[in-house]
Parts: sequence; structure tokens; C-alpha cells
Amino acid sequence: MNTHHPLHLLLNPSSIAIVGANNNPMKMGTMHALSILKDGFAGTLYPVHPREKEVLGLVAYPSVEKLPVVPDLAILVVPSSEIINLVEEFGKRGTRRIIIITAGFRETGDKGKAEEERLKETAARYGIRFLGPNCMGVINTSISLNTTVMTLNMKEGRLGMVSQSGTYISQTLSYLAKRGIRFSKAISVGNSTDISLTDALEYLGDDEATTAIALYIEGIAEPKHFLEVAKRIVPKKPIVAQYVGGSIAGARASQSHTGALAASDHLYDGLFKQAGIIRVYSVEDLYGHGWMLASQPRLKGNRVAVLTNSGGPGSSMAHTCEKQGFIIPEFSPHLRKKIEPLVPPHAPCGNPVDITFSMDVEVLSRKIPEIVMESGEVDAVVLHGTMRSGFIKAIYPHIVDMLNGISLESILDMVRIDFSASASLPKKYGIPMAISSFFDFEDDFTTAYHAHDVPVYDSPEKAAIALASLLRYREILQRVENKNDVFLTEKRQFAESLLITAKQQGQTVLDEFHSKRIIASYGLPIADEVLVYGEDELQRAIETIGFPLVLKACSHTIPHKTGKGLIFLNVNSTAECLTAFRNIQTNAGQKVPVLASRMIKGEREFMVGFLRHELFGGVVLFGIGGIFAETINDVTFRLAPLSISDARYMIEDIKHAALLQSVRNLPHVDVNALANIIAVVSSIGVNHPHIQEIDINPIIIEGASPVIVDALIVLK
Amino acid sequence: MNTHHPLHLLLNPSSIAIVGANNNPMKMGTMHALSILKDGFAGTLYPVHPREKEVLGLVAYPSVEKLPVVPDLAILVVPSSEIINLVEEFGKRGTRRIIIITAGFRETGDKGKAEEERLKETAARYGIRFLGPNCMGVINTSISLNTTVMTLNMKEGRLGMVSQSGTYISQTLSYLAKRGIRFSKAISVGNSTDISLTDALEYLGDDEATTAIALYIEGIAEPKHFLEVAKRIVPKKPIVAQYVGGSIAGARASQSHTGALAASDHLYDGLFKQAGIIRVYSVEDLYGHGWMLASQPRLKGNRVAVLTNSGGPGSSMAHTCEKQGFIIPEFSPHLRKKIEPLVPPHAPCGNPVDITFSMDVEVLSRKIPEIVMESGEVDAVVLHGTMRSGFIKAIYPHIVDMLNGISLESILDMVRIDFSASASLPKKYGIPMAISSFFDFEDDFTTAYHAHDVPVYDSPEKAAIALASLLRYREILQRVENKNDVFLTEKRQFAESLLITAKQQGQTVLDEFHSKRIIASYGLPIADEVLVYGEDELQRAIETIGFPLVLKACSHTIPHKTGKGLIFLNVNSTAECLTAFRNIQTNAGQKVPVLASRMIKGEREFMVGFLRHELFGGVVLFGIGGIFAETINDVTFRLAPLSISDARYMIEDIKHAALLQSVRNLPHVDVNALANIIAVVSSIGVNHPHIQEIDINPIIIEGASPVIVDALIVLK
Repeated sequence: MNTHHPLHLLLNPSSIAIVGANNNPMKMGTMHALSILKDGFAGTLYPVHPREKEVLGLVAYPSVEKLPVVPDLAILVVPSSEIINLVEEFGKRGTRRIIIITAGFRETGDKGKAEEERLKETAARYGIRFLGPNCMGVINTSISLNTTVMTLNMKEGRLGMVSQSGTYISQTLSYLAKRGIRFSKAISVGNSTDISLTDALEYLGDDEATTAIALYIEGIAEPKHFLEVAKRIVPKKPIVAQYVGGSIAGARASQSHTGALAASDHLYDGLFKQAGIIRVYSVEDLYGHGWMLASQPRLKGNRVAVLTNSGGPGSSMAHTCEKQGFIIPEFSPHLRKKIEPLVPPHAPCGNPVDITFSMDVEVLSRKIPEIVMESGEVDAVVLHGTMRSGFIKAIYPHIVDMLNGISLESILDMVRIDFSASASLPKKYGIPMAISSFFDFEDDFTTAYHAHDVPVYDSPEKAAIALASLLRYREILQRVENKNDVFLTEKRQFAESLLITAKQQGQTVLDEFHSKRIIASYGLPIADEVLVYGEDELQRAIETIGFPLVLKACSHTIPHKTGKGLIFLNVNSTAECLTAFRNIQTNAGQKVPVLASRMIKGEREFMVGFLRHELFGGVVLFGIGGIFAETINDVTFRLAPLSISDARYMIEDIKHAALLQSVRNLPHVDVNALANIIAVVSSIGVNHPHIQEIDINPIIIEGASPVIVDALIVLK
Repeated sequence: MNTHHPLHLLLNPSSIAIVGANNNPMKMGTMHALSILKDGFAGTLYPVHPREKEVLGLVAYPSVEKLPVVPDLAILVVPSSEIINLVEEFGKRGTRRIIIITAGFRETGDKGKAEEERLKETAARYGIRFLGPNCMGVINTSISLNTTVMTLNMKEGRLGMVSQSGTYISQTLSYLAKRGIRFSKAISVGNSTDISLTDALEYLGDDEATTAIALYIEGIAEPKHFLEVAKRIVPKKPIVAQYVGGSIAGARASQSHTGALAASDHLYDGLFKQAGIIRVYSVEDLYGHGWMLASQPRLKGNRVAVLTNSGGPGSSMAHTCEKQGFIIPEFSPHLRKKIEPLVPPHAPCGNPVDITFSMDVEVLSRKIPEIVMESGEVDAVVLHGTMRSGFIKAIYPHIVDMLNGISLESILDMVRIDFSASASLPKKYGIPMAISSFFDFEDDFTTAYHAHDVPVYDSPEKAAIALASLLRYREILQRVENKNDVFLTEKRQFAESLLITAKQQGQTVLDEFHSKRIIASYGLPIADEVLVYGEDELQRAIETIGFPLVLKACSHTIPHKTGKGLIFLNVNSTAECLTAFRNIQTNAGQKVPVLASRMIKGEREFMVGFLRHELFGGVVLFGIGGIFAETINDVTFRLAPLSISDARYMIEDIKHAALLQSVRNLPHVDVNALANIIAVVSSIGVNHPHIQEIDINPIIIEGASPVIVDALIVLK
């Protein structure tokens, strides 16, 4: 635990002052105060109120100055116009942590933005670190602290949550309680004027009570820093994130909400992959997968047992598990023999195991899972059909007449089961388990699973998909185990001079030849080529390179050559060569140098790029190249600088990654050479601040080897 | 309503006999009987029991013969060994509909399979139509008939359900009740020995009480018939289906369960698309999307309003709606002006509308939705944040002390709202609405929405995705409005003779030349070509076709030529031509005819295929062709014969459909010509029963026109 982190004191105060609470239970400030008062926080709460003598049964103080102690934390729920003065007063009083619930700053326009700046300066002057404005505050279940407006109703948990929407740590509290999902800490960061989402992530990374972290993100202000922090955390604990943004109306809604920075979904996707963050697309999965990751043991392999009391859910779980990358191994004869006596004749017991409808809940809930976990034949269990009180309640109206007035409660009392025998299996065997139940939290099996941190989902597919988040994390850990040092080559002076000269001459782009010279100076493979200024130099080019040739106009004034008669492919004779040269001059409408290159033939084309993004900084791109690049649009992004292992993952990450394999008589692509191109391009971008963009397309695979065929460098 | 359909009487009996019920409430037979007795069925139930005089308070009859009336329906829940005798007895007594709950037939192996055959014959002898065996029976909410083992707890509804898993119409009944999802009819088909899934689908298609149909499928025994039936229904009402199968363990689980026929996921996907069925991947979506489709008005366009009391859910709904194909139009100034007075200053009201946290539930639940629906600016509404009792319950523990002992119930009584004002909006305006609520069924808004058939989902993304099922149905209806007659050309005698001759000569495949002759006889575009038997014929080929040429070995003994030195591309001179011819002879190791074809150049390659599938019959394939066809694996299937509109949809349906568009200087592909190839290939397959498989790959796009470059016909 990092006790020096600004959030440490904010989440663990002994005393809290609240400004904005009164005795009207429907006022927001009061609701925040009530949560602190009623949910078990053992510290002291000091209401500040200009007129009331008593607030919620506590002595109220007329001003900050009059407070009997220096509170560790202040919570402000007053109109935005009063905030800065209050920060000033708390600053003078000596308080160093503040939660500003109040909205009405940056998100309201220019005036609010200026106010927010002034707020930041004021706090900084006093060394105050604050959360918000425009947030819901925090939850720390280990000290029963809840500063939101809703009832906590949650014991100590293991999922750390950081949210850019206050709703997801308040409106959802009863939703979470029903599902047995429990936070360790939850932090609503609001406008992140001071303490940011990344700060909160960093804190949870060091927090022993937190075993997995869930992030709700509408935009990250400092992606590079976020990446560094996340990369440090992921080897220790999993991070799952939902990113909402990158769409037109989404940006409209989101910017108007927290004023967060939205960017292309592609970029965030790349950021998450590079960081090893598991991405989800709904808040249900954010919680549900987060809880799976927080509560279950690490997965040791990809073999899953599918156990059910009904064919439909069993088939669906099996189908979904396989789609998610699990294998469902057929059980050994030895294991089958142990299960067979427990199930009806003809019931499938080779995995999936379907005990069919049965009143003997012990068999499905404990006996079979335990036999299966003991066997060593699987690494995880997904189980559908445990039920007791939910089932009995459902059929009670039908049987009540036959029971001579026995109450539902008495029946439930009669059927006693040691639920914990099933619920404690994951911990006992170190094997994760996911439960699917159509009775969800209305069944006492569910209650027991919740108490033992075993996640329960309300449909079979959902249980299987949530379980697969453990598989995703396993894949991530295997990746980060590889050497992952950032790749940076020495800066080449030749390249830097070339760029500076072009810049000084007022060029906005380098021509193809000079773009490639820079790339070649870093040792990347370029097709042999000669820049030809006049017809007399053509013969030398032919001798140097040989046929077939490609001839292209080469000038920084013509960055895009396609479709203008400026490119001649497959030139096979001196005569053709001359004709092509002359045609280029004519079509260009000016005297233009011609780049004569060896014609590279290959069936597979890729592209690599670099661009300097306003928000993300240097960004590297890899994808399918060639003339269909934009149509196919199969690209992946990472932040520069990256590691060789990042570059390799980019190559595996595109949808058409199978094209790299040996196909028909084409060899497997030299992936090391391709990864090297990506890493070096990233380094070139980082080394030379004059570069705005590097666009290498296509890289043609000749035999197994990537060769750079066209390139363009755009200056900043 | 089709009163002649075998399911009509089965679902609407006046009298039911049940065999297998006794007075033990935990026995399956008793549970089935209890459902009939207790859930409101107004007809008469006659227990048959050899020993008991009374069962569940009813007179029990010792045998079928002794029944006082001829029951319309019999339900059998006895050991499988007794089933056939009972069917016989009911047959003699005059009963013509039976539900066989009992399992233990086909799914247990060969002996069970034979028994099932005998069962079928026995029933047929008496004109009995039966459901099952190995099923849960039926639900008909319009007469409160429930033959499953679980309590119905469901008023009359509109979703028709057919399931190959009994669980999905029984174990899930309380799950459905909580979510306000109500069946019109539900039919568990079990082994489908007599009445099949398709029969049930057909019945629901004609059933006025059913406005949408949900299918849980593990395998369809008669895909062609299913397609015909579904195609007739879809223009009248939407069908949504989950298919679970096509995976290794899925098949293992599923076959052992209902013994259903599983096949490639690709084939079922094609079947659903051809039929206009909306596919889902979880039972949650099967119900949730089914209920949206059953309960909401048809969508008239793709403009959606996103209304919320919280930024997070608002952003997520907007993001998800856009991903699903909705647009979120910015409201007109006129409309904004109407909303502005209702929301706090600075609150976004241009769509999304975010009223932020507010106690005035009328604004979010009724006023704004009504203004928006009235405006004509949107076609659908998605709404998050309505809450009353759920919210009050959640904060009650915090405020109870301040309320001088006022009970929760009294508070709830004090805050009276006309919930139906919001819940009746979709019907009033004919505009669909989806609700997202974290309080789900614990809120009285939810109760009201349920009562008015407005679907409520427990997360914002789920509401948005469910709403999009209406968009999917709209797209389907637009497609089926097009002329959709099956395309079949006249059978060509030339082709038939060629096939018969080859067959008689014991060939298993046709060589490329003859395969193409058959295809060409149907008018499809083949590259000019000449079959050359000796060197002396080469010159004639050159004169006929011109350079560049392609030379390929052509023999039915060498169906696969790649990588064996049997193909020479881009042959540009007579000398090269002769060398190629000789090399082919050498590499083939035999004297072999050579096919000399015009070299077709083009950047885009597709493939079309036909195959005769054991289960699906004639199946047509379209996808990306060329040497990477298998690597890219972008294909779509349909059943033959198909329509031109089916063929066009196949072309749009592949993932790389954008390749058909104009890219750089390549023109838009002639889609009519490509669709014609698909339709004609389908027709060739249908016309000639000797064909097992047609494999056309590649079809190269030359300019805009598809040209068939290679083809192979495999004989049956």
C-alpha cells in the first residue's frame, strides 16, 4: 500500500467535514452525509452549515474556521460559485484532501473552464489534492466509507473501480449487491481536474485489498502516462476497461458530460492491448468480468469442465466456451467411471456432464465438481443448475395444498444443505468456477456462492464468457513474461540533417526517394533504386538494378502519384524504360526526377505507419497494405516507443494475421523482419521531432522477406 | 389461426388425461399435473393411475379404457418401456394428441432409436400426432395451460417460443416473470419424432396471439422445409433464433441430449439469413430481443433519441446505438427549445438528453419522451433512469431516522405517480421504446412497463442492443420486399449428357475444360480457351486467343494442379508456349492435354461453389477467392435453389464486401453479373443430380466484369 499517494488519506480519513448537508433528506448534500453516517464509517463527521445548529443529529459548525479539528477530508456539495472560497478556507484551516461533488465547471463552457483553472491553482497553493469536481466521491469498503448518495449495502470486497461516471459507483450499488459483486475501493474521478483516472489506477495497483481493477473510461487525458502505470500493474493484477467514446453522438454526450477527451476507438483499442488491459463493451461485463477476475484463482490452463442439470444450458455453455478459446476435454475413462454412478443411465458424463433434472442437489453442486477438480483433468469449471430455495419458491404455489399448511419457510428449513461445501471448492482446489443460475440471487445457493466470492451469472452464456476473461488474462500474462523493453535505436545524424534541410526549405513532405533514404539509414530493407534526373542516366539505373523495373515520378510537390500516369510497373526493356520516362515528364506537366526501382513481386502486402497524435503522441500503425488497405481497413495501433514484443503482438493482432502463415507454395512470412520494421519506424518517429507522419505502404513480402516499396514522410 | 394444424388441438384441449401423476409432489408426473391443475386451465384433468383412487384430489381412473370421456390430449410421464402400450391404448380410446414427456429413446443409442421408430409407427396407425418424447410439453397462456413442471406465473403474452430444450420453457419461467416477458405459446419439441420444430414454427406463424417467434435450436432435421416455412412467416412477424451446435463439445452435448443434427455454423448462419431470421448468441438475447420484437411497434426509420438521468449510461447507450446502426440525430432548435425548460442549465438536451440526477421523475419518464415522440424527429426512444420505489427502497435505510417512524410503504404511498402515462407512450405514438434500469423489477416503474408491454433491461447497452433487433427486422423486411422468386434456368441437355457420359466412364470429377463447358453452356463468362492435345495444335490456340496466355494441364486424373509445375502464367511468346507445353508433359509424368486460356488480370478474386450436403441438400457458397481463399475464409452459404435477391444479399453479406466498390482506379464490380453467376451455379446444381460439388475459384474481376478462371465439377 502506498500511504504517500494522495488518494490514501482521501480514502482513509479519520475525520470528514461536509459542506452542503442540512436536514432535508432529499437534498443531495444531505444524502452524501447520510451515506457517511449510516453505512458504518467509524470516523467523525463534521457538518458545516451557516445557519443550522444541528445537522442529522450532529453539531453543525457555522464555518470552516470554527471546526473543532482539522478534518482529514472535506466534501463540498454547494453551488459551484462557492467552491473556490471554501477550498481557500479549508486550505487555511489545514485540510489537504477535498472531494468536490458539485458540477458546473469545465463542462458548462469557457467561463466554467476558467473557474476550474482557478480552482486548481487555489488548491495547489495550499498543497491540497482533490477529487472532482462533478463526481460522486469514493467508497472504501474496508472502513465502510461511502460518500455517494446511495446506500452501500456491501461488505468488504476485492474489485477496485475507477469511473468517469459517478453513476457507476452509486446508482448501481443495489444492482451490485444483488449480484454479490463487492468493491474494495471505488473512485469517481469526475472532471479529474487534479487527481486523475490514472492516479486512481496507480493507487489501486498498490492496494492489497484490490485483486482486480475495473475502469469506466470516456477519455484519457494522458494516454502515455496511463500506459506506463497500467503496464506496471498488469503483471500483478488484471485490469478490465470499458471505453465509451469515438462515436459522434457518444462524443457529444460524453464531452458535454465530463468534458473528457474522446478519440478514435482504434487508438484506445491499441492502448488497451499494449497495456494488457482486457476490454469489455458493457457495464454489465465491466462488473461481471471484473468480479470474475477479482474473485477467482488464476487459471492454469485452458481446459474447462461443463456441468449441468439440463441439456440446453449445457450445450450453450460448451458452445460458448469453445468460441472463447477453452477446450472441453473428453474425460478419461477413469474419471468417467467415478462420475457414472452419480448420474442416471445414458446421461452424458464425458464432459459436458448432464445429470438431467434431479432433486439431489449435492451431486451437481458438490460431488461432481469436486471429483472433477480433484482429477487434474480440467483447469476451470462452469456449472449450471444449482438450485434450492429459488426452485422451492417457484413450485410452492403448486404444492402448498398438499402440505397440510406447512409454510414455505418450514420447507426451506427442512431441506438443509451445506452450501459452503460447493462454494468453497474454488479456493480449496485453486480452480476457478463460474455459476449460471436462472434463479440468480433468489436462491440460497446463490447467496452461499456470493458469500464465498464465487461469481453467479443469470444465463449460461454469460457465465462462460465471464470465465473466459480469466483466459484473456492468462494470455496477457504469457505475453508480458516476454522481454518487453522499449526498443529505441540511436538517432541517425544523416536522417536528422535531411529532415532539417527539408524543413528549412519550406517542404511539407519529403519525396519518396528521400523518405526512403531516411528509412534505409536505419537499416530497413528498401528495394534497390536509383534516382534518375535525365534520360542519359537511365542506362546506369538499368545496369545497376536490372529488369523488371518500376519507374515513378519522384518529387515532394507530388506526394500522391496513383492514377495520374506517373507510375510504370514491370518495365522490361530499355525502350519501354525510355518511353515510361518521357511519359512521366509529360503527365507530370513539369520536369521531374524519376525513381527507378527493382520491381518487387509478392502476393502479400502490409503497411506500417507512424503519426504524431495530438492526445496520444507518437502512434504506430500496422495493417494490411496495398491498394485495398483502406477498403479492408485491418489495422492496429500502439503508442511509440514500443517493444519488439509489442511489435510482434501487433502482427498477430490484425484480423488477417493468418496471411502471414505458409499458404500454398508461399513460405511463412519472416515475422522477425516485419516486427523489426515496426519497431524501427516507431523509433524513427520518436527520434525525429520534425516528423509528423511516416507512411510505408506497401511492404511487399518477397519470398518470406518484407521489402519496403513505397514510403512518404510528412513534416511537422 | 390454423385450426387444422396438429398443434391446434394439442395446445387447446378441453380435456386432458395424464398418466404418471400420483400424490407425491416431488414426482415429475405429479409436478406436470399440478401445473395443469393450479395455473388456471379451465378444462378437465383426468389422472390415470393403476392403484390410486384419487390423485391430487381428482378421481383417478385405473386405465385408459375406463376414462369417462375421450380426452383431447394425453400426457405421458411413465417409464419409456410403457409408452408404446399407452399410445396404443389412447389410440384405441380415440385420443388423437399426445405429449410424451418421458426420455430414454433415440438419445440412448440404437435400441432406443428402434423403439422410437416403433413409437412413431404406432401413433401413425391411430392417426395420433404427438410431441416429444423427451420434452417438457407446452404452455398456452391464452387458456392458462401449462404442462411443464414449473409454476407459470405469467399472464397472456405475445412471444411464441419453440425450444429443443425443455429447460427454456420451464426452468426459466421465474426468470421470465421477473423480466416481464410473456409467452403466447411455448412448445418444447424434444426429440421431434412426430411434430417437429418446423411444425411448431408453422403453427405460431398463423397464430394471431403471437407477434414474434423465438427458436432455440440444436439442429434442424429438414432445413429446406424449415426455410420455406420461415420465409412465409417473416414478412408477417419476426423470428429470432439461437443455434447451438457446430462445435466439437457442443455437438457432443447436444447429440447426447436430443439427438439433434448439428452442422457447420456457417450453414445455419446462411439458412437464417436466407430465411430472414435474426440470429442471437445467448438465451438472454433470445428472450430479450424476442420480447422487444413481440412487444414494440414496428420501427419506421433508424433515428433514435437517447434520454438519461446520468452521463455514463447516456454515453454508453449512444455509443452502442451507433454501433448497431442507429443514428442519433441532433434535435432541431425548435425541439431543443421545448426540452430546455425541463432540464437544468447546461444539461445536454440536443440528443442525447441528460437531465442529470433529479427527483422529478415525471420529466424523464413522461414529459421529455412525449415531446420527443410528438416531434417526428425520431423513430425510437431508449431511456435510462426511471426509478421510484427501487430508489426509495435503496435510500430508505439512510433516511428512516428522519421520518419519525414513517414506514417504507407509507412513503411509497405518498409519492403517487401515473406510471402508465410513460408506459403507454409506445402504443400512443407507434414508436418503440426500450428502458434501461439498474433497479430492474424491484421498481414500480418497471412493473408498469411490464404491464404495458414495454421491455426493461438491466443495463444501458442491453437496452440499446435489444432495440436494434427492431432495426435488424426492418432491414429484413426491406430485403424481402424485393422480388424474391426462386431462380431456375432450363436444364441444358448438353451438360446432362456430358455428366452422364463421365459418370458412365467411371470418372469422379470432370477435368477443368469439361467443367467449364458445362458452366459455359449455361451462359456464364469463361475466359477464352482452347484444349490442346499436341504441340502441333499450340499455334492455333495462340492465334485464337492471343498473348498473354495461361497454360494448364487438363485431366480429370489431376484435379489439383497447384505447386506441381502444371500451370504456366503470363506466357508471352510462341517459344515460351512450347517450353511450357513440354514442361507440363514432363511434370505430369504422362501425356496430358493442355488448356490454353487467355490470361485474365484483375486485382479482385472471388469464388462460387455448390455442394450437395447430407442434411441441407444443395448448398451455394460465395466468398473471397484466389490463393488466400482458405486463409481469409470469408464465405457465406445459402440453400439452393435461391433467388437473385438471395444472391445479391450473399454478395453484400461477406465481410470484405467493400472490395466490390470502386477502389482507386478500379471500377465498381458488376454486381448483377456476379449475382447471376451465383444464381446460375445454384441452378446447375439443382438441375443435375449427378453433380456433387461445383468449385469455381477464382472468379477474377477484369475491369468491372467477373470472369471464371478455374472450375472443377465433382461427380456424385
